[in-house]
Amino acid sequence: MTKLTIAQLLKETKLQEVEVKGWVRTFRAKRFIALNDGSTLNNIQCVVDFENTPEDTLKRITTGAAVAIKGELVESQGKGQSVEVVVSSIEILGDSDPETYPIQPKKHSFEFLRENAHLRTRTSTFSAVMRLRSALSFAIHKYFNDNGFYYMHTPIITGSDAEGAGEMFKVSTLDQKNPPLTEDGEIDHTKNFFGKDTNLTVSGQLEAETYAMSLGKVYTFGPTFRAENSNTSRHLSEFWMIEPEVAFMDLAGNMDLAEDFMKSVITYILENNAEDLEFLDKRLADEEKTKPQAERSELSLIEKLKFVTENNFKRVSYTEAIDILKNSKPNKKKKFNYIIEEWGADLQSEHERFLVEKHFKCPVILFDYPANIKAFYMRLNEDGKTVRAMDILFPGIGEMVGGSQREERLDVLKEKMAVLDIPEEELWWYLDLRKYGTAVHSGFGLGFERLVMFATGMSNIRDVIPYPRTPQNAEF
Amino acid sequence: MTKLTIAQLLKETKLQEVEVKGWVRTFRAKRFIALNDGSTLNNIQCVVDFENTPEDTLKRITTGAAVAIKGELVESQGKGQSVEVVVSSIEILGDSDPETYPIQPKKHSFEFLRENAHLRTRTSTFSAVMRLRSALSFAIHKYFNDNGFYYMHTPIITGSDAEGAGEMFKVSTLDQKNPPLTEDGEIDHTKNFFGKDTNLTVSGQLEAETYAMSLGKVYTFGPTFRAENSNTSRHLSEFWMIEPEVAFMDLAGNMDLAEDFMKSVITYILENNAEDLEFLDKRLADEEKTKPQAERSELSLIEKLKFVTENNFKRVSYTEAIDILKNSKPNKKKKFNYIIEEWGADLQSEHERFLVEKHFKCPVILFDYPANIKAFYMRLNEDGKTVRAMDILFPGIGEMVGGSQREERLDVLKEKMAVLDIPEEELWWYLDLRKYGTAVHSGFGLGFERLVMFATGMSNIRDVIPYPRTPQNAEF
Repeated sequence: MTKLTIAQLLKETKLQEVEVKGWVRTFRAKRFIALNDGSTLNNIQCVVDFENTPEDTLKRITTGAAVAIKGELVESQGKGQSVEVVVSSIEILGDSDPETYPIQPKKHSFEFLRENAHLRTRTSTFSAVMRLRSALSFAIHKYFNDNGFYYMHTPIITGSDAEGAGEMFKVSTLDQKNPPLTEDGEIDHTKNFFGKDTNLTVSGQLEAETYAMSLGKVYTFGPTFRAENSNTSRHLSEFWMIEPEVAFMDLAGNMDLAEDFMKSVITYILENNAEDLEFLDKRLADEEKTKPQAERSELSLIEKLKFVTENNFKRVSYTEAIDILKNSKPNKKKKFNYIIEEWGADLQSEHERFLVEKHFKCPVILFDYPANIKAFYMRLNEDGKTVRAMDILFPGIGEMVGGSQREERLDVLKEKMAVLDIPEEELWWYLDLRKYGTAVHSGFGLGFERLVMFATGMSNIRDVIPYPRTPQNAEF
Repeated sequence: MTKLTIAQLLKETKLQEVEVKGWVRTFRAKRFIALNDGSTLNNIQCVVDFENTPEDTLKRITTGAAVAIKGELVESQGKGQSVEVVVSSIEILGDSDPETYPIQPKKHSFEFLRENAHLRTRTSTFSAVMRLRSALSFAIHKYFNDNGFYYMHTPIITGSDAEGAGEMFKVSTLDQKNPPLTEDGEIDHTKNFFGKDTNLTVSGQLEAETYAMSLGKVYTFGPTFRAENSNTSRHLSEFWMIEPEVAFMDLAGNMDLAEDFMKSVITYILENNAEDLEFLDKRLADEEKTKPQAERSELSLIEKLKFVTENNFKRVSYTEAIDILKNSKPNKKKKFNYIIEEWGADLQSEHERFLVEKHFKCPVILFDYPANIKAFYMRLNEDGKTVRAMDILFPGIGEMVGGSQREERLDVLKEKMAVLDIPEEELWWYLDLRKYGTAVHSGFGLGFERLVMFATGMSNIRDVIPYPRTPQNAEF
């Protein structure tokens, strides 16, 4: 008797006695169980001999019940599957009361499923999304491993708040009601667990730079945090980020790396996750049909993925992009929500999407941004007003990747920090990298959930992470 | 002109013009640069024509300086390397003042290097350790991916404090000095970011169970936290944990999985990281020589790794182990620090190591522990006093893996929670798994840093994670 997963069974050509365990998705005509074990989107059909099965057992074959089935794997008579199981014995492992089980065999709203996030991967949509999330994670590790990068775990709790990427959460073991105070009436952080005030990290980049400047090519893939009160479908308070960092690589090399990387991970899921992608492609198409014509996407999910893998990414300077946008129809006709009037403007998603979807019709890498709208650690160009930053823009979603060549000159970096009131004592170790064997180096950051949204066609970021953390919500 | 990493260059057989960038490890006789770029433990020797190089440039070739070298790859005359570079041009990219650079070409204490953790991967020992850490991470992801597991990111910030694995850190955005209070004078957590009191997670297991009960086979690999004031060489406040969880798998299956998994990841580094392992093997042997004979390990580092891959893990019940220990020489002669007197005793590292190193001479899996020394979610055996728990014991380090079959019976689980005062409202979603389609399931946890210690022979856990977080220390 062979014990295989349903994914394996569905590919079997040898007809045989099998044992299979899973959860009932549906049971119809007292005869056909659609059984799923999570290994694949597809169910295996198990045909029950209802005349010789006790009525009491039949009643307990309900949606969500866990069952163990023994039987014979045979060619299927029905359409949609090549094999099915003729049940010789069935055991109910765990009942599921149809009166109270939240996941019924019908369409549930995503809002409802978010409230039942512990059960939502029992639906086809969420199991497909989470299998893809897993596959994308693996594709990322595989890409970097294959290309000589070392994976680095940067710290989550940080004593620094100088990274400047956003509002931070405090981490503390002090008594919240009666915190110890200094003589001056301030919080006495020497009594705190780490002997100082600590926060949850907003980025591992600065620490990743320390490893790039010794191990050469490194990357991080870990959780990062923002305490901003942004209750939108695009923001999470806790999300995962990928940040490669490479010594001796300039901005052009950074663009090459990012393009190759994005194409590689998307190719991986196209090759390895076709069933889940096709299901989500169809789901998105159905969702699009409910929208007014003007708001529908021109590309299907799979077309969007191939848009990335099959096109060269167009490299355009920020200055050039501003010219294109200023002279574009939607700008002149005031169709943009934010009209582009002059050099220096921060681009919005609508502008990024215009460049990608309407103007260039391919993924776009914008580079050489105005220094004053970008972070302190980015390499200042010789013009004194732009920095070697790059953003990669994708269809539908706008910015996917943000990166830069880093400022490797000690004096320039110190000047920038002084202007922004970042104390040198806080980043002494970061400055050390510029004191001892400094060199050109670059890297980028990719918000993992944005990638999962892009790859699955889900439109709310809460639906691509198992247990989303957002303002007023830390359930499960 | 070929641009290759030093790892690639050292394997080249085609003699050619090359360009190489890296950091100077040593420069001797105004002639021989040992150059390293982090891609490998080994340096490439670059031979400078000092008679035709300006004195000013020669002076700047100091330990830690970043340089770009062009030259010819030739067969080496010296021993210890097959190829070397005859330098035709050298450019100093970043100086390193030999008067102030902390990493001198001499032996530094690990304590000193911990204070310079941003530079310590510029030493052979720490670069080897961190390359192995990266390789082990990849081996873990590869093992699970190859075996049909889905990777799941469990939440870091949690609203639950019922996991019971240890003291937790608070996460908050409340004003620390003047927190909002309720009418009763308690902290008003409705004003907190998540609308309630939140902590950093101590384990992803409970959430992983929710995904096992829908996707079948899943695992987590993420950071976990303990706010215990343990200032030892074996404790971190922030560490990474791997937690697989599998539906329809009992304790025997759990043991099979854990043994196969541990053998697989250690085999991976033996096959892929031989140079770094040999270096660390030698380092450990040198360190052992400084210890009194009685305290030295019988096994070298690589022998310890093979002890795991080449032996079957012996499976022994807790009850049997207690008998063995009670009757053992060190127990009778009172050589143990903790004398084993009766069934129910919690085993210490000295007992675990005795079983592995002296008695069975192979890795050991202990199972069926007394219920009252194990967690609430472990499956109660029919005897009513033991649970289906298992610990895997390794030489030198004791417990490496801890796991169990989970309690799948709603009534038994509720009873246990009641006894331990764990409110059902906090874990309603965990109980739901037992209400709807419950089934036998199991999993285990592996502290990643303990694995890295075992695999590298490092004896202080602070030396196997880039930036350790411990009481009174959150630097970098």
